Amino acid sequence: MQQKIKQYKKDFDYSYTSGAFTTIELIKTKPNIVRCVYIHSAYKDNEHLEALCKNNNIEYIYSDKIFNIVNQKGNSFVLGIFEKYSENLNADKSHVALVNPSDMGNLGTIIRTAIGMNIEDIAIIEPCADIFNPKTVRASMGALFHVRFKIYKFFSDYQKEFPNHNIFPFMLTGKYAPEETDPCELFSLVFGNEASGLDKSFESVGTPIKIPLSKDVDSFNLSVAVGIGIYTFGRKNGLI
Amino acid sequence: MQQKIKQYKKDFDYSYTSGAFTTIELIKTKPNIVRCVYIHSAYKDNEHLEALCKNNNIEYIYSDKIFNIVNQKGNSFVLGIFEKYSENLNADKSHVALVNPSDMGNLGTIIRTAIGMNIEDIAIIEPCADIFNPKTVRASMGALFHVRFKIYKFFSDYQKEFPNHNIFPFMLTGKYAPEETDPCELFSLVFGNEASGLDKSFESVGTPIKIPLSKDVDSFNLSVAVGIGIYTFGRKNGLI
Repeated sequence: MQQKIKQYKKDFDYSYTSGAFTTIELIKTKPNIVRCVYIHSAYKDNEHLEALCKNNNIEYIYSDKIFNIVNQKGNSFVLGIFEKYSENLNADKSHVALVNPSDMGNLGTIIRTAIGMNIEDIAIIEPCADIFNPKTVRASMGALFHVRFKIYKFFSDYQKEFPNHNIFPFMLTGKYAPEETDPCELFSLVFGNEASGLDKSFESVGTPIKIPLSKDVDSFNLSVAVGIGIYTFGRKNGLI
Repeated sequence: MQQKIKQYKKDFDYSYTSGAFTTIELIKTKPNIVRCVYIHSAYKDNEHLEALCKNNNIEYIYSDKIFNIVNQKGNSFVLGIFEKYSENLNADKSHVALVNPSDMGNLGTIIRTAIGMNIEDIAIIEPCADIFNPKTVRASMGALFHVRFKIYKFFSDYQKEFPNHNIFPFMLTGKYAPEETDPCELFSLVFGNEASGLDKSFESVGTPIKIPLSKDVDSFNLSVAVGIGIYTFGRKNGLI
């Protein structure tokens, strides 16, 4: 269904993928939510993309004008318009929980890292960056469409829903390095906001973890900390 | 020494730190390269900053106008003007080597991660992002001033200078996960460009490492991959 496209806003019921790679990920992973695909006349691999759209009954439209409206970086020749959606997390899988992530680039990068390590469930506690903003989608390199995510008002709501998960809040006052924990089948790795981390109340919701760090920095970048956490837990518990 | 400040360009012989945290890191770590510090009238902790400047014989200037010129994000109230410098790497310490890093945010984040894990020597192979650009400095959160770095035209130049380092190129065709390597005293972790990684020739310069990843992503974000690599090697070899 063709529609009037505007610069993205958070309250829209749709968003878009920018760039061929991410759009193709969208089509392959969640064809049912794709409203249409826009192709710029300068896009070279259009035959392959047309075939992919046809196979999935997705309308494609050649238009250069739309890229002026939505394409701030000016280096994308494919756009996919998709409907926003929501899903429940899987109670039988390990999770990542992000408390108040504020940066869309970090959020997208974390989703990409999680999917790369076979963690497919992400809880997000409000307030938080917009997971559907095209910047988040782009930073995730399309991994967003592989993940189940759910947004919660309070961490306690999330915790009540998944009482069987072993919770590991990552904080500077943590007691154990990530590799020092016992193996466990069902875990939830919890990370705080970029600037403020997790507050003291998280010390009592599980086993607090601290990634060891030198005296010369006061924390790690959030995406890096999550990467180290997921990798260490994922490897020692056989996820990857 | 006061001087006419312009929007940063790569060919300047100076650059600047933006924000109080990074500027204080600069003054504490490398006072001798600081030309002067600018303070916005809205900055609240100015007495502490004034004392720090005085103790280090650094001129400070109150000016709001300069922040309009150099402060693109508009949320910084302190600027430190510093002279560019260069240093040699330490042959007795482990290194990170970045081949053609192109993103200033990634470069700064990687420097912050390295310093956080006590890796203080970074080789960078051209072409590469500008390490002195205020964006890189800011992403490093001031960790730039703790690191020794040297820029090389070719990886082979770096390799010849440090024949005793065990080289571990990170690549998708790597044979071992980071934690599967033998302990080693002197290592160099080598990472390629964000988009293209390391080319095939690196398979023969050392022991190629692959961070395991699922079928649903084709790579990790560079900062995340470096974080996982440094953490795993740093922990198993007693750096942190």
